[in-house]
Amino acid sequence: MSAPFETINAFRDLLKEGAGPDEAAKLGAEARNGQLTKPPGALGRLEDLAIWYASWRGDARPEIKAPQVIVFAGNHGVTAQGVSAFPAEVTVQMVANFEHGGAAINQLSRAFGASMDVHALELDRPTADFTQDSAMSEADCVAALGLGWEAVDPEADLLVVGEMGIGNTTSAAAIGAALFGGAAEDWVGRGTGVDDAGLAIKARVVAEGLAAHDVTDPLEALRCLGGRELAAMAGAIAAARSYRIPVILDGFICTAAASVLEKAHAGALDHTVAGHLSAEGAHARMLSGIGKEPLLSLGLRLGEGSGAALAIGVLKGAIACHSGMATFAEAGVADGE
Amino acid sequence: MSAPFETINAFRDLLKEGAGPDEAAKLGAEARNGQLTKPPGALGRLEDLAIWYASWRGDARPEIKAPQVIVFAGNHGVTAQGVSAFPAEVTVQMVANFEHGGAAINQLSRAFGASMDVHALELDRPTADFTQDSAMSEADCVAALGLGWEAVDPEADLLVVGEMGIGNTTSAAAIGAALFGGAAEDWVGRGTGVDDAGLAIKARVVAEGLAAHDVTDPLEALRCLGGRELAAMAGAIAAARSYRIPVILDGFICTAAASVLEKAHAGALDHTVAGHLSAEGAHARMLSGIGKEPLLSLGLRLGEGSGAALAIGVLKGAIACHSGMATFAEAGVADGE
Repeated sequence: MSAPFETINAFRDLLKEGAGPDEAAKLGAEARNGQLTKPPGALGRLEDLAIWYASWRGDARPEIKAPQVIVFAGNHGVTAQGVSAFPAEVTVQMVANFEHGGAAINQLSRAFGASMDVHALELDRPTADFTQDSAMSEADCVAALGLGWEAVDPEADLLVVGEMGIGNTTSAAAIGAALFGGAAEDWVGRGTGVDDAGLAIKARVVAEGLAAHDVTDPLEALRCLGGRELAAMAGAIAAARSYRIPVILDGFICTAAASVLEKAHAGALDHTVAGHLSAEGAHARMLSGIGKEPLLSLGLRLGEGSGAALAIGVLKGAIACHSGMATFAEAGVADGE
Repeated sequence: MSAPFETINAFRDLLKEGAGPDEAAKLGAEARNGQLTKPPGALGRLEDLAIWYASWRGDARPEIKAPQVIVFAGNHGVTAQGVSAFPAEVTVQMVANFEHGGAAINQLSRAFGASMDVHALELDRPTADFTQDSAMSEADCVAALGLGWEAVDPEADLLVVGEMGIGNTTSAAAIGAALFGGAAEDWVGRGTGVDDAGLAIKARVVAEGLAAHDVTDPLEALRCLGGRELAAMAGAIAAARSYRIPVILDGFICTAAASVLEKAHAGALDHTVAGHLSAEGAHARMLSGIGKEPLLSLGLRLGEGSGAALAIGVLKGAIACHSGMATFAEAGVADGE
């Protein structure tokens, strides 16, 4: 679907009009949960997940039939500063790998029954080095937000957005610092595997980026410090809300893009859950900033949407139990009251 | 297959003869892991899981095609002491629910493509109240170990064992205290939901059980304090090792049964991984006692094998990545070296 905005301000306004959860479905799901053949609360967080999902889908007994995984790829001018262990050419090589089905996210999407789309965003036109200039013009940023918005299938019933972009942990770190405060050192990590010298470069680059731009506005932080794939993820997450499609957030970069929305409008991420805690150092700090507890903590730090895709399994398990289990009355089981 | 033991001592001897992982498959899996299109270590614990699984299956590039879930049910004489919030009749009612497909474990088994078998172990003949007598005679214990052994499909490529048995968190707590030491209070928890008074009863009952028996030998602890479903789980986990079938351990009761094996022969659980951390208070202590880190921590405390079944998804994701991803050479991606 065509994106319903042509400026960053129009996108910002849309965030305030977002759809909400369905209260009747929520009450119905809570009532059902209380009648299932298990001690109260014995499925732990799976119960909360099922009720949350049901409320967003407007169905007290929902199914997950059509999860969609979208991977956005972008190139970053800031790689000129030596912030990554990998050369920028790897972005385009990995896009080919996604298209040929060879990456981790391909396997995970298949394993959990998700469709997978890949969008390469002008890889031959990297964003500007944000220590020198705004990463994106307003037009570039709006185009990327719009591409993300349009990439979401309105018929999907669950969304994972992932990314590929050599240099984008530096971009995400700069956004984290802009949105949540703290020193550049607090937000940079080893990404795909930089050494101590690389880490020091990342911290310097982030500090320079913060000094170079007025990033008190969250969407300005995205435009000045972000990348096309981050803007596209933000657009897709916002679109999912408009369709009442629940979203599983991935790691550090996805969470940075999502945090822009939450900081621009509190509650903009109510339709999302944190899929996993990344091994990228500052991810825990960022999740804490948006008030999300990760479902998984398995030391992943790959991006691509991989941690969130793995968490599709957890959510599918939660919904299978919620919607498939017998009630005490159906099963003739004493309910312990 | 018929169980290859007729006494507890013969079962104990079998533990020492267990099959080991395949070193060539392990080396092959490690080599493959290093060539996949991702930064080194970026899939975190999924990489270790895949190599562990490959080594036990004797295949550097394995698949998971036939997971088996087995639920064992038993009744416990110790329920006469008032240790559960639910009446003992619930065990047989829940077995009917398993057989009719209405329980959580049915939904999770289906969601993750596992077969599911249910074995009710002489529900009309509960074990003895262990504050008064040994829970099981030698013959009863051997029969339950043997039933568990025989329940394992030698063609399965992954095993989850779960349980149902009103009163069995008390039995598991007593085994935990017998195997790992500490006070009764350290090992009892709220199970299906007892109140403070119920918790105090559980602690007293566990202390009485420990005082009533000589449980310095782990298998004697199982016989005197356990239940048929715990012995059956132990038998099944041991059988899985003989077939080189990796096992995902479930929560508190499954881990108690498994711990008997580890204490009887160090290394007896090398073919197992901890599926999740249960909300039952002492599970973390017990996992620490056998040196296992749980894959999931979602507040489940249901039993039935539910937490382990949920973790099948994680393991399937790990194997999908390991065996399905392209190598750097295949994908033409620069490997950052």
